[in-house]
Amino acid sequence: MKLSLKKIASLVGGNVIGNDSFIIEGINSLDAATQGEISFFADRKYKESLRKTKASAIIVSEENLLFKGPQVVVSNPVLAYAKVASIFAPPVPRYPGISEQAVLHDSTRIGKDVSIYPLVYVGEEALIGDNVIMFPGVFIGNRVKIGNGTIIYPNVTILHDCQIGKNVIINAGTVIGSDGFGFVRDGPVSVKIPQIGMVQIDDDVEIGANSCIDRAASGKTWIKRGVKTDNFVHVAHNVIIGEDTIVVAQVAISGSVHIGRQVIIGGQVAISDHVEIGDRVMIGSQSGVPKSIPSGEVVSGTPAMPHRLWLKTSGIIRRLPQFNEHLRHLEKRVAELEKNL
Amino acid sequence: MKLSLKKIASLVGGNVIGNDSFIIEGINSLDAATQGEISFFADRKYKESLRKTKASAIIVSEENLLFKGPQVVVSNPVLAYAKVASIFAPPVPRYPGISEQAVLHDSTRIGKDVSIYPLVYVGEEALIGDNVIMFPGVFIGNRVKIGNGTIIYPNVTILHDCQIGKNVIINAGTVIGSDGFGFVRDGPVSVKIPQIGMVQIDDDVEIGANSCIDRAASGKTWIKRGVKTDNFVHVAHNVIIGEDTIVVAQVAISGSVHIGRQVIIGGQVAISDHVEIGDRVMIGSQSGVPKSIPSGEVVSGTPAMPHRLWLKTSGIIRRLPQFNEHLRHLEKRVAELEKNL
Amino acid sequence: MKLSLKKIASLVGGNVIGNDSFIIEGINSLDAATQGEISFFADRKYKESLRKTKASAIIVSEENLLFKGPQVVVSNPVLAYAKVASIFAPPVPRYPGISEQAVLHDSTRIGKDVSIYPLVYVGEEALIGDNVIMFPGVFIGNRVKIGNGTIIYPNVTILHDCQIGKNVIINAGTVIGSDGFGFVRDGPVSVKIPQIGMVQIDDDVEIGANSCIDRAASGKTWIKRGVKTDNFVHVAHNVIIGEDTIVVAQVAISGSVHIGRQVIIGGQVAISDHVEIGDRVMIGSQSGVPKSIPSGEVVSGTPAMPHRLWLKTSGIIRRLPQFNEHLRHLEKRVAELEKNL
Repeated sequence: MKLSLKKIASLVGGNVIGNDSFIIEGINSLDAATQGEISFFADRKYKESLRKTKASAIIVSEENLLFKGPQVVVSNPVLAYAKVASIFAPPVPRYPGISEQAVLHDSTRIGKDVSIYPLVYVGEEALIGDNVIMFPGVFIGNRVKIGNGTIIYPNVTILHDCQIGKNVIINAGTVIGSDGFGFVRDGPVSVKIPQIGMVQIDDDVEIGANSCIDRAASGKTWIKRGVKTDNFVHVAHNVIIGEDTIVVAQVAISGSVHIGRQVIIGGQVAISDHVEIGDRVMIGSQSGVPKSIPSGEVVSGTPAMPHRLWLKTSGIIRRLPQFNEHLRHLEKRVAELEKNL
Repeated sequence: MKLSLKKIASLVGGNVIGNDSFIIEGINSLDAATQGEISFFADRKYKESLRKTKASAIIVSEENLLFKGPQVVVSNPVLAYAKVASIFAPPVPRYPGISEQAVLHDSTRIGKDVSIYPLVYVGEEALIGDNVIMFPGVFIGNRVKIGNGTIIYPNVTILHDCQIGKNVIINAGTVIGSDGFGFVRDGPVSVKIPQIGMVQIDDDVEIGANSCIDRAASGKTWIKRGVKTDNFVHVAHNVIIGEDTIVVAQVAISGSVHIGRQVIIGGQVAISDHVEIGDRVMIGSQSGVPKSIPSGEVVSGTPAMPHRLWLKTSGIIRRLPQFNEHLRHLEKRVAELEKNL
Repeated sequence: MKLSLKKIASLVGGNVIGNDSFIIEGINSLDAATQGEISFFADRKYKESLRKTKASAIIVSEENLLFKGPQVVVSNPVLAYAKVASIFAPPVPRYPGISEQAVLHDSTRIGKDVSIYPLVYVGEEALIGDNVIMFPGVFIGNRVKIGNGTIIYPNVTILHDCQIGKNVIINAGTVIGSDGFGFVRDGPVSVKIPQIGMVQIDDDVEIGANSCIDRAASGKTWIKRGVKTDNFVHVAHNVIIGEDTIVVAQVAISGSVHIGRQVIIGGQVAISDHVEIGDRVMIGSQSGVPKSIPSGEVVSGTPAMPHRLWLKTSGIIRRLPQFNEHLRHLEKRVAELEKNL
């Protein structure tokens, strides 16, 4: 792949300062870049790297005199980097067509230009869209639908009746459509409540590695367009996650939780069942969320409280032992006063 | 499947109010049910759904005038729902017999009416009971025993010498019999302690998706009858979990922990090694349990304390900043008093 | 396997008290050992087991009169046990050679005496060292390198370009080289930052079951020699973990965290991105680490504080309700004093 700086600038909505016909052949970090590569500068703490870089061009938010070569000026250099990197990044390795060592049911319908590796299993009446890539060890259950351009990494399990949208990425080892954790006690014995719903994942979602999204008890568990989840995320039955929400690693979302759009949930957060999280809420890592949170709030801690309050509170927690002594000392002084009065 | 209300009532130990010869063809939530289906009403907050439902019959704990059709009256409607739903639920999809694309060792012994999908691997001298279902990607190690009626979902790994009981369900991606985390320091270097025990899982257990149950250092890690665990549960070496205990998602149970029967452990709890948890203990989500807990206690928090104390404590934690100011203010008043005396 | 006590003593650097030509045929715990087996005694709370054991010999740190038979005296009995047990432990079961039901690319280069089970997939230009064992369901991506003597358990995924050292153990279900969680916001939409780096795992590392180690955004995520990680550990992109560090189950290590050598990280710890953890640091379980920690410190709690402070603090947290009342009571007494003055 070779692109002129002019072409790159047009792809990211930027302007070139310097020679815009210079040809770029790759992209890299400031430290690792070599002749012919472009890099980016977005954080002042990397000034020294900028001064020393061997990159032939850089992406910046304003012209920077520490760098002598041509510069592409954009409003958001990290975003521009992401876009340019996606052009130069090596493509996902594709198996050429459908392997004879994959196991496909006769009733499966397969789109155009798919890449199905060996050791893939696809069940009855599944619908596989165009340009889908499925790596070895992938299991696709009966009647599963997978949209165009979706990539399913090795050893992913998608159980019966689940629906996956277009341009979805499901990282390795993840399970979609396992039974929700639903039991009712009959004396001491737990009787299983059949989980007869499914999971729907909309377009442009990415699910991390070794994650679990349980099927609904009835109806659907629903991950909406543009959601991105990290590794080890647990999504219980009947959860709904709104558009463009971000869920960091090891988060546990309990049954029937409804999460709004553009929410950010930090790592290791736990959310209790039936809680509602409004749009654009931010939840600090390791928080425990027992109650609903209105739109726009920023919370932290267990139980979750406003983030500013939590910052104060957690500062005081370390001082509790002094606090304790302070209180004892004060009591003595009061006793002394009482005696003297 | 078609059942008269009379038949349904007899299956769940209930009485029919209304036409008991009415024929039911399915079960659904109040909102989703249609003509010919039965639903259930167990929580007053769904009164509006009850009024509007298109279900032809309902399961209730007492006759409800908001619903005009026939009613099945039982003591526990959720339990009755679970039982009826298990009759109407679609059965687990079975591969017809043993796939030629499965890899079975000659020394394996296989029961009657099993369903072994393609891409399953079964090791030497394994014993597979009657009616067992094993999905693609399942690995069964040497000398593993699997009881009648057990279902093993895709990409599950069961390593050598482990024993699985009857009517067990192991959800996708789970690992049974991985080495326990046992090392001893030789200077800075960690020397592996061979993990020569196994895992025994008794009848009627369900293990969630993407979970891990480690084999014992020696002897066995033991999950007793009726235990139900959610996704991402970590069970370390030599743990024992008692009958009918429930373990919610992302719980970490350290080595040699012994847990009693009918215990309920909330999500993301961590239990330190060698701790003993008595029967019927309840542990709130995200708790840290460093010490043993006697039977019947209800605890929460880190370190775990009585749940009622934790409710008070966690309420005070949010007020620590005011607390702090209060203390300072009081000090000033005492200093003022001292000056005036 | 049969070894004289003399031979065993020489292997572990110990001395025999009693008949050093006695032949040992196995090793077991004090309670389970039988005639012909050796056991070990390292903790006084097992004195009763020592008195009753049927073991023919024991490993001890000093001669113990509760046991009548021959004794091997060493400085560290647990370490000696680990070494002797590794001799008597059954070897990892090996497939004889390369299965015809494995899928290997023509361009793969394979060392001597490997054991490649059926249903393994190996990509283009992968390099597999001597004596490597790969179980069913293993996926090896293009250009992956695997060092001599490494064992890869079932359903492990190692994605393209990752490098695994010698004598590494990767437990079942683990994913190495999944994409790091890197996105940049374009308005509400999350744009993926291509993850073009890799994962390097050095010699003698053991990775637990169902874990995830993400590939670097660029450059490498790096697990150094002798690191041992438990199950469900999350290692984000560009993390570095130093030699001989131990990471317990369900730990989440965020992007670009650098961890020193001989560090011990307890279960369920979360470490924020870009944090630096010095050598020999110890972090208590469930801690949240928002800031860097200098070498040698011992910390606990959220946010992490010195462990001794945390012990005091967490003791006071349970007493906060009394604290609260104490403060109110004191206030009344001060008010009374003020009135009387």
